[in-house]
Formats: sequence, C-alpha cells, structure tokens
Amino acid sequence: MRATVIHAPRDIRVEEVPDPALQHSTDVVVRVLRACICGSDLWAYRGESARKPGQRIGHEFLGVVEEAGTEVRAFKAGDLVVAPFVWSDGTCDFCAEGLMTSCPEGGFWGSVGSDGGQGEAVRVPFADATLVKLPADAASDERLLTALLALSDVMGTGHHAAVGAGVRPGASVAVVGDGAVGLCGVLAARRLGAERIIALGRHTARTDIARTFGATDVVAVRGEEAVDAVREMTGGQGAHCVIEAVGTEQSMRTAVSIARDGGAIGYVGVPHGSATGLDLGVMFGRNIALRGGVAPVRAYLPELLADVLNGTIDPSPVFDATVPLDQVPDGYKAMDARTALKVMVRL
Amino acid sequence: MRATVIHAPRDIRVEEVPDPALQHSTDVVVRVLRACICGSDLWAYRGESARKPGQRIGHEFLGVVEEAGTEVRAFKAGDLVVAPFVWSDGTCDFCAEGLMTSCPEGGFWGSVGSDGGQGEAVRVPFADATLVKLPADAASDERLLTALLALSDVMGTGHHAAVGAGVRPGASVAVVGDGAVGLCGVLAARRLGAERIIALGRHTARTDIARTFGATDVVAVRGEEAVDAVREMTGGQGAHCVIEAVGTEQSMRTAVSIARDGGAIGYVGVPHGSATGLDLGVMFGRNIALRGGVAPVRAYLPELLADVLNGTIDPSPVFDATVPLDQVPDGYKAMDARTALKVMVRL
Repeated sequence: MRATVIHAPRDIRVEEVPDPALQHSTDVVVRVLRACICGSDLWAYRGESARKPGQRIGHEFLGVVEEAGTEVRAFKAGDLVVAPFVWSDGTCDFCAEGLMTSCPEGGFWGSVGSDGGQGEAVRVPFADATLVKLPADAASDERLLTALLALSDVMGTGHHAAVGAGVRPGASVAVVGDGAVGLCGVLAARRLGAERIIALGRHTARTDIARTFGATDVVAVRGEEAVDAVREMTGGQGAHCVIEAVGTEQSMRTAVSIARDGGAIGYVGVPHGSATGLDLGVMFGRNIALRGGVAPVRAYLPELLADVLNGTIDPSPVFDATVPLDQVPDGYKAMDARTALKVMVRL
Repeated sequence: MRATVIHAPRDIRVEEVPDPALQHSTDVVVRVLRACICGSDLWAYRGESARKPGQRIGHEFLGVVEEAGTEVRAFKAGDLVVAPFVWSDGTCDFCAEGLMTSCPEGGFWGSVGSDGGQGEAVRVPFADATLVKLPADAASDERLLTALLALSDVMGTGHHAAVGAGVRPGASVAVVGDGAVGLCGVLAARRLGAERIIALGRHTARTDIARTFGATDVVAVRGEEAVDAVREMTGGQGAHCVIEAVGTEQSMRTAVSIARDGGAIGYVGVPHGSATGLDLGVMFGRNIALRGGVAPVRAYLPELLADVLNGTIDPSPVFDATVPLDQVPDGYKAMDARTALKVMVRL
C-alpha cells in the first residue's frame, strides 16, 4: 500500500510500504477513507520533535473495517469506524477510568513499528476498545464525514482543554490559539454552556470560524495588548477558564496573564521549548490551576459523536483544504506556511 | 505595645511600637493571646523574601477583641476570635466565592503599614468578614487553644492542598514536606477520606506526628529512592493526590514524579527559586494537574473549626515549642535550625 513517511525534517514522502495484516486476534485492519494533518505533525515536520528516518506519520483517520481478528466482537468487515489518536487495551485501570492515553499497552499511530493515519490502511490493535462505530450512511455524506474526522483528535482535544479549564454554564472562557484545536475549544466551550467566549487570534479567516463556533468576542492583538483587552472584557478580572492550545512559552505566559484569580488553564498544546512560561509565583498568589495534557479522546468520543450526529456541534469548518494521498507533502507545506488551517486527506 | 519587627535578614527584634487604634468603623483591635511562627516567615528571616527594614512580622494569631468600631456587628469587646492570615472585605466577588486571598481590599498581617501577628495587639480591618468567633471557654483550655491557633494558617493551608490535590474517599495521597503544613495536609487528607496516606520525611519526630494524624506509610528516603518507594506502595502507578508543602524546585520535581497519571498536585508551599521544577512535558503526557496557591483560610475556617471543636481533628501537635513574646527571636532561630517544628508564642 501507499503511506506517508517522514525521512527527515521537511522530507515527507508518500511511498510504497508493506500492506498491514492482522497480527493479533484482537486487531482489525481499517481501509482509510479520510485522514488529516495535525498541528502536532508540524513539530515533527519542522524537526522540533524527533522522528526516526522512515517512520510513518499521521494519527487521525476514519475508514472501513477490511478484516477483523477472531476475537474482535464489536466490528466486522464493512463497518465504518473512527479511531482516536491512540490505541488502548480497554482493560487496564487507566482505560477503566477514561484515561486511555495512559494505557500501558497503548500507543500512538505513527510510532515506530505501527501504521500511521496518513496511508491507505492501518492495523488497529485492541480494536474493540480503540475504535468507535459510525453510522454506515455517513460515508456518503461529505460534510458529516468531515465533521466525524475531527473526532479523531481536534474536537476531543478541544473538549479536553475545556474540561481542564473547568468550563461550565455561565463561565467566561478565553481561548489562546487559533488553530483547529483552539477553534474546537471554542465549540466545546459553547457546548458546555460558557456565557462569554473570547477567541484570541489575528487571522480573520480563523476568527470568523471562531465566531461561527460560538465566540462572543475576538481579540486580534497580541502580548500585553491582548491581556489588557481580555481583562477589560471581563470587568478587570480575567477569564474564569483559559484554553491553551498552542504549547509555547509565550502562549502559556499569555494564558496565565488572562486567567481570573481562582480560575484554571486547560492546556492541550504539546509543550515545546525549554521553559514552561509558567510564573509559579503569580499562579500561587492568584490560585490559578493548570490541568490538561494529551487528550483521552477515546473517552469523549461517544458523547461528542452523539452531538455531531444530532447536529449540536459541527467541527467540519476546521478543514479548509483537501488533498489526495499523493499530495500530503503539499498539505504539510500549506499548514507550515499557515496558508491552510487544517488539511484533510481524501483517499 | 511590644511587637516583633524585622530589620534585616536574621535581625528580628521585639520592640516598642505604637499601640494599634481603630482607624475605620469596621475595624476591631484584638489583644493577642497566642501567635506563632510560620515556615514562610523563615523565607523573610533568611533574606529570601524581601522585607522593608522595620516591617512587622507574623500572620497567625488568636486573641480577645479589645475594642470594636461602630459598624462592627459580629464582635464586641471580650469575644475570643481567631484571624486567618489575610484580612478581606467580605463584599467583593472573590470573597463571595470563597477566594478571600484575592480580595482587592485584602492584605496580609505584617505587610507595610499593618500590624503583625507576633505582637501584643493587632488592628483588624473588615472585622466582621475577617475574624471568626471562638467559644469563650476555649481560652482556659490550653490544648484546645493551641489547636485553634492552627486554624489561622497551617490547618487551612494543609486543607487547601488536600482540596487542590483532589483528595476524596478511597484516594491514595502522598505528602511532600514534613513541616507543619505538610502534617496538617496529612490530617486534612484523612478528614477527607483518603484511604492511603504516604508521608515523605526523614525526621522521626515529625513522621511520628504524621502517623498520629493518619499517615498509613512513611517514606524516609529522598530523591529517586523516595519516588521508587511511593511507586512501589501504589502498585507502580503513583499517588492519586500529591500534597506539595515545601515550595522548592526539588520538592515540586518529586511531587510530579510520585503523582499517578491523571492525578493532581495540590501545592501550597510558597514557590521559591528561579525554576519551577515542573517538567511540563511529563505532566502533559501523564495528565497531571497542578492546583493550589495561597490558601483562602477564611473560607475553610467554619468547617475546620467545627471539626476541631467536635474532636474530629486536633492539629495542636504541630506546635512543639512555646516562647513568650520577648523570646520570639529565639523561636526563629530554633525553626531555622529545624530544632523546632513550629513555635507558639504565648502572650
């Protein structure tokens, strides 16, 4: 089959790789229908996260079960399924608690020895625990399929940030980061009943989506000016809940500065750089909590899927470009240059 | 009157200062019966926290109302009262939410222009909101009075850490820091229903108190050995809840290392040093939350007072030395040398 492979920073190729096959009786093989490129893939693309030359890449996909192992109970060939960005065994303490990302038997698509999402097919370990079934007729609904693809990562990650930030009915929420995760954070905050949602961002195309997703205000300046603007919008106090969806020292610094005393930062931007950006003295004096991390998307999938299907949320607008598999390298270029917000791969 | 004054690092004196007097109609003047020295006072004593020469010091006290302003409703001369370590107006948004430490009109005893707790009397602003009445007969019960004194800071601060760490019935809790706050954290964790409480400490006198307070295990080694020990006690996973009651880079590093994935660190040690000790990459991957800060002791006082009075908790053993006012400088020396755990001042 053909799949996307990373050979070195900025050297992404689509090439022939071995076809995936069942290795364990709990595996399935999924034929990929839609995949996408994640902001966190760009860290590898830019060489800021190490990858072994020849490693697969891509961790978001949905598709059709092609073959199922003998012990797989929940899926059979032909089922339409979505995968969260990690697999998990479904039997450990952490899986039972909904923290599938800490499953000792779990792993990330595209890690060494596993298939990546940006390819024609993927071997899925622990299929019963990992995958979630989608309605069969979604395959013929382009808009719905796009929305469902967001459940593999960005929508669940935005939701995790909102949960970490303690979003609740009536709360004020500020969102740092205008990428797909930040925008999904806006959508998640609205879904959880936030009263005021302030999106920070300077790209009109993105902040327009934020408004569609429920942002009540947009702050289009940066640094101290942005902090002042958020404080002014919140009676001088800052936002009860801050969603941090970037992962840089500067974005974390901004997140702390715009949080209200006693509030929380829900952080889902993969941390990068040597410094945290956290002024612990300030956080201590103002009782600002920090909660988040890699999102256990699998735990959130059922409730978010239900709300996509019933029309409560539609994250599909975060995809603003589509490429066929062979043009995935162009998709990376476009996202790296920020000319695309999030690129879908149609197989 | 006589009060404790800090002139420079390690230059603490008890000297004559102006008698406090009512300045506002909502003030009272409290004649101090008991005060104490806090671990955080030592940061000033050691010169690691800046103080103006001649500034008062001490933020924990209980005593008898000597004079009340005309608008004071809840207290009258002769009432026995305890003060939390900050005053607060009782009318702002933050006071209404129980985060009195963020009250814009609030302040710390011993800050420039205010009386400190380690003196004969204190002018208390916003007395109705700030003070809590104690049973009159407690004044003649030495053990009870000592326990009640702990409510001015360390017991409420330990409780805040336990709340921040998410202590709940059945949880495993690890406590970093064997000072008075850490020990009160043990007591608070037991009160909140923790199943297993692991106290880290190498001073038998202190860990013996920890056991009295409810610690089920003591880890008397440090660094990697301590981390290994806590992990072994918790099935390899770490503690659901970690109380961090030191505030150094090293203690925070330990706290992160012994936390279970998905768990939380409740931190109440005043942060010191240029680095946070937080490895955000580790916290991100393991979804470890950080929550805490300066404790809104006033918010917790009613429930903790009730439990001291009904015998559920007795924090009095954290006081292992008592000095008269004139010997407060010796008390600092003893706590600095760690020959005393916590020094009470009897006036």
